Amino acid sequence: MKFSFTALLIFFLSIASAQSVKSPSEEIVAYFGLNKEGKPYYSVTYKNQPVIKESYLGFVLKNQGTLNSGFTVTGTKSAVVNDSWRPVLGEVAVIDNKYNELSVSLRQESTGKLLNIIFRVFNEGVAFRYEFPKQDKLNYFILKEENTQFNLTGDHKAFWIPGDFDSQEYVYNETPLSKVDNEALDLDNGIAVKSIAGRYTVQSPLMMKSKKGLYINIFEAAVKNYPVMHLDLNPETFELTSVFAPNAIGDMAYLQTPAVTPWRTIMVSDDARDIVAQKMILNLNEPSKIEDTSWIKPMKYVGIWWEMHVGESTWDYSGTQDASQKKFTKKKTHGATTENTKRYIDFAAKHGFDGVLVEGWNTGWEDWFGNWKEEVFDFTTPYPDFDVKEVTDYAKKKGVKMIMHHETSGSVANYERRLDRAYNFMKQYGYGAVKTGYVGKIIPRGEFHDGQSMVNHFNYVPQRAAEYKVMVNSHESSRPTGIQRTWPNYIAAEAARGNEFNGWSNGNPPAHETILPFTRLLGGPMDYTPGIFEIKMSHYDPTKTEQVHTTLAKQLALYVTMYSPLQMAADLPENYEKYPDAFQFIKDVAADWDETEVLEAEPGDYLTIARKAKGTENWFLGAITDENARKSTISLDFLTPGKEYEAVIYQDGKGADWKKDPINYEIKIIKVTAKSKLNLKLAPGGGTAISFIPLN
Amino acid sequence: MKFSFTALLIFFLSIASAQSVKSPSEEIVAYFGLNKEGKPYYSVTYKNQPVIKESYLGFVLKNQGTLNSGFTVTGTKSAVVNDSWRPVLGEVAVIDNKYNELSVSLRQESTGKLLNIIFRVFNEGVAFRYEFPKQDKLNYFILKEENTQFNLTGDHKAFWIPGDFDSQEYVYNETPLSKVDNEALDLDNGIAVKSIAGRYTVQSPLMMKSKKGLYINIFEAAVKNYPVMHLDLNPETFELTSVFAPNAIGDMAYLQTPAVTPWRTIMVSDDARDIVAQKMILNLNEPSKIEDTSWIKPMKYVGIWWEMHVGESTWDYSGTQDASQKKFTKKKTHGATTENTKRYIDFAAKHGFDGVLVEGWNTGWEDWFGNWKEEVFDFTTPYPDFDVKEVTDYAKKKGVKMIMHHETSGSVANYERRLDRAYNFMKQYGYGAVKTGYVGKIIPRGEFHDGQSMVNHFNYVPQRAAEYKVMVNSHESSRPTGIQRTWPNYIAAEAARGNEFNGWSNGNPPAHETILPFTRLLGGPMDYTPGIFEIKMSHYDPTKTEQVHTTLAKQLALYVTMYSPLQMAADLPENYEKYPDAFQFIKDVAADWDETEVLEAEPGDYLTIARKAKGTENWFLGAITDENARKSTISLDFLTPGKEYEAVIYQDGKGADWKKDPINYEIKIIKVTAKSKLNLKLAPGGGTAISFIPLN
Repeated sequence: MKFSFTALLIFFLSIASAQSVKSPSEEIVAYFGLNKEGKPYYSVTYKNQPVIKESYLGFVLKNQGTLNSGFTVTGTKSAVVNDSWRPVLGEVAVIDNKYNELSVSLRQESTGKLLNIIFRVFNEGVAFRYEFPKQDKLNYFILKEENTQFNLTGDHKAFWIPGDFDSQEYVYNETPLSKVDNEALDLDNGIAVKSIAGRYTVQSPLMMKSKKGLYINIFEAAVKNYPVMHLDLNPETFELTSVFAPNAIGDMAYLQTPAVTPWRTIMVSDDARDIVAQKMILNLNEPSKIEDTSWIKPMKYVGIWWEMHVGESTWDYSGTQDASQKKFTKKKTHGATTENTKRYIDFAAKHGFDGVLVEGWNTGWEDWFGNWKEEVFDFTTPYPDFDVKEVTDYAKKKGVKMIMHHETSGSVANYERRLDRAYNFMKQYGYGAVKTGYVGKIIPRGEFHDGQSMVNHFNYVPQRAAEYKVMVNSHESSRPTGIQRTWPNYIAAEAARGNEFNGWSNGNPPAHETILPFTRLLGGPMDYTPGIFEIKMSHYDPTKTEQVHTTLAKQLALYVTMYSPLQMAADLPENYEKYPDAFQFIKDVAADWDETEVLEAEPGDYLTIARKAKGTENWFLGAITDENARKSTISLDFLTPGKEYEAVIYQDGKGADWKKDPINYEIKIIKVTAKSKLNLKLAPGGGTAISFIPLN
Repeated sequence: MKFSFTALLIFFLSIASAQSVKSPSEEIVAYFGLNKEGKPYYSVTYKNQPVIKESYLGFVLKNQGTLNSGFTVTGTKSAVVNDSWRPVLGEVAVIDNKYNELSVSLRQESTGKLLNIIFRVFNEGVAFRYEFPKQDKLNYFILKEENTQFNLTGDHKAFWIPGDFDSQEYVYNETPLSKVDNEALDLDNGIAVKSIAGRYTVQSPLMMKSKKGLYINIFEAAVKNYPVMHLDLNPETFELTSVFAPNAIGDMAYLQTPAVTPWRTIMVSDDARDIVAQKMILNLNEPSKIEDTSWIKPMKYVGIWWEMHVGESTWDYSGTQDASQKKFTKKKTHGATTENTKRYIDFAAKHGFDGVLVEGWNTGWEDWFGNWKEEVFDFTTPYPDFDVKEVTDYAKKKGVKMIMHHETSGSVANYERRLDRAYNFMKQYGYGAVKTGYVGKIIPRGEFHDGQSMVNHFNYVPQRAAEYKVMVNSHESSRPTGIQRTWPNYIAAEAARGNEFNGWSNGNPPAHETILPFTRLLGGPMDYTPGIFEIKMSHYDPTKTEQVHTTLAKQLALYVTMYSPLQMAADLPENYEKYPDAFQFIKDVAADWDETEVLEAEPGDYLTIARKAKGTENWFLGAITDENARKSTISLDFLTPGKEYEAVIYQDGKGADWKKDPINYEIKIIKVTAKSKLNLKLAPGGGTAISFIPLN
């Protein structure tokens, strides 16, 4: 009796106020309901299988009660949307935006407060956001908690990193959910500032695979005026609850009605390729706010950067600051000299790169890190050996664009108060792009990188930069959530563990680059800085054991598998000059695309992507694997039928191995058509890169 | 036996490491010593009477121990200084800087940390500061506490306001120290944001009078990169201990060696006039950092301001925001219209005022206060009925300078990130001065007006403004401590309870203006906004009972007794036009001076000052009293011997009384010389203003 009564009650309550909305494909269904206490919940199914079990929704306010129970549904609204738009820069020329929408209007009877929940169901997954409409009972309010649950159906395999309010630069762990444990992690990983939120807190995007082979991803889109969502896991029930960085005094977010939260997203498919290819995060963001986007261009660049990471030179003038964790015997000198910059400009001009980044050009680096110092950089004072005018004039003459560097050392207060001066300085000398950096504990003190204030800052900089027609590439920012649709000058971000960690820490294991497209890259392009040819740091110092955890061929493949309209050729010019045949791929590969085909994908294992370069008939293919060697046969049916192409294949040489023999590569040139099939052979930690240039 | 042993021990210890330094007059002596635990202490005598009994000195650091005991003296250094300098704007043409200095170098034996204490003894009092020299054992450090004690000798009468980290806009309390009690205060006083630090915490400057008739004042000078000092009183022992606003996470100050604290000051005299006339606070600040100061000018101004305070118009365009606490029946309209501004410009031009302030000219006022809102004003967008170009062109044609207004509503984050745009906007339209405002809880949230970050902001704005040749008048800032010597474009501040409170709150009692010169004004000029002729608010609405707590004549006298190079004629043009004879004094009075004579002074009771206008032979005199009528005879021996002057005397009329008959004044014109004596007759809450213009 007891069992059936409970079952009946749930059934009855669900019926009483249940709503549902399906994806256009009808494979995904989102359900919404209120339980008997008026607590809102939702659930998700995929092909009739549960993906998210009934999960509660709601908030705790500061001094204004809660918004998580006592609701009644006062109305619902449906919409069907099917349109498309053209990104300024992107993986494809046209993005389809197709979803079914359900808006549920709620009223909390005891207080009269109103809350709406909006569901959008795409073929890729479910998104929902909370909306606080303008209302008499709620104007200004402070959130203490958003308690959005994602009640998972089992002990899925998860690709997770710790929920850290200050950093996402972790190596991914691949374990069942039940084995998530931040306390068991080795934190000697090269990350400068860590603020792990809890023992079982993980970051989103959280990529998972169920035992039945469903690929499930929990993420968010359009994070604006709101902190970043992290996920608190109950490792026994597999229930995730949203958790957010507080501000300095423990508040989560300051809002005024009308207000919306970011979109909470649940992507699901039985084909891993669908996750990599998704466009729903972009679709959930607002269209470009920049009218004239003609100055926003893809960019391949080189720069004075890796030489500091490998300990060949320093950021600071006095020669003490490189990224090496070892003591070198050789004397180090400042990297950002006029002379050295000209060398990079010459190299960029000779090999057709668009830009040159120079880090360490400005005063402050002698004492820039680790002391929570407010006034480190002024962003306008070069070191005496860096002549800004001479350098920018020279670059202009050579047809190369200089990329500005603004490291803030986390002192956002200092950066914001100097922002206009910094950007005016850039315009004075013709810089059209800036790389920003946020290494260190945030100032205003007490704030986290992932808090509401910092999210606002990270969104504010591209907005302000747009007024100067400057493109922004942010490092150590909160991770993007599709905001580059709205501010397309925000061309790339770091916000994950980049290639640099291979230079001076335990590095990025071979699986790393096969996971990022299922996690970090869902939110936007990453400035991963691939293209390291001198794989082993012993090249610079025989006592060093650090190395890049890939083969050279895989470094090439990353230009295709890691989408970004901003791509660095990160290694030193002299290293590229030693391997001119392999370097040719980096010179040839595009950074902006009309078409993208995800050919093969399995998170943590492998990824193969082909892309068609913007405005051309040229295709480029990248295939990568994890620590395991891999063979596969791919059909070239993405090529235009009837055309013949010259395919230049850059692949791992015989016996190549990321650890034992990483620079071993071979280049084959063959002719192919859309009917051809190719056998790919990837070494452990290896990859293949191919360019397809039409012959007719 | 026991008593004499203790006495002997103290004597011995004092001798062991005691140092002393005298004022040039030899009347004031500061003593320094270490007790047997190596705790540093000091004491002060005046004419051989104890003023400060032995009082400990020291710090608590965050995670780096304490700096308050275990010291030995490693060296001492003496200096005798006697020089002078010329302020850009001031009460006198030349300021003498004369003091004896003692520097004591200390070493904490257990840690090796170094700390210096520097004493400077002027004829006006003792100053000392802590110096953290550059050293191996201390580089970056965080202060949790500075525990500087001021161990008073008895239950002095004190003029005190609560130690509030967000406001100094209190009415002064005049009680013995033993009766200080913030919990007994009526806090319905019109102050918007209050953060009282503790039950017995009071603000500095703390003015006191001992039972033996010594005037003692505890204050500080040169507050830079350091929070404002408040004073925690032990109401039983009369021991004061310094206390400071923490930042959002509870830290007091972030410093790096070499660093210094502000100067802690103890002024003492048996003549109250010496306190009012002191120059040691300025002398303890650094010389001007502005080379070309030719653009820094005294300024008398009118403006669209008081009309909002009395409820005749509003700051906001939609007509809802005035400062009235009553409901009016008449419809209110926006004050800052082009037309109204032109009226003020005409008035200023006609009567010889330098500037016109316009508040409420920019968008944001509809919802500017009380919601801890970050983005309220952008400082560059006028309301549609305020044509900036038309107004500034018109002012230029009329030879009048426009004064910009930047209310931040406490959102310093927003102001700093827009600062350059705001100042560029000003330069575009020719504004050379700005009034800033900080009404509201500070953003970054968790910071206080008196914390280190905000002190830095308040010092940063004049520094940045100087680059635009803009003068700054800050309201609701931390109170000045002589920083206008270093940044002479920081011409005035509010930072105390101004005249405006008389318009819409319980107001400022008649004694108020006799106390400010012993407290707030010691740190720098105040934009008190005197000159209210329509004393009673019932003038505007018969239901109102608020009023200015002075007679009209006292409003005139304030232009002399309240030193400021920036002086507002705060009342409405139409009110001045009703009393043109009295208005003449405001038109005549200077705002910058070559000489100043404090003729009579008693805090809380009365004050009479004569000043000689810069570069002229004109003298102006102001005499004010508290709620008591007052008669006195003053000698005019400050006038140049042999010259004859026409003295225009603006005095309270017969039967005048601040409450019963405040507008009752009379004007007498007589001829006087340096040999003349004048009988002053001040009504309850009254005053006398006199101009002396040489006839030969």
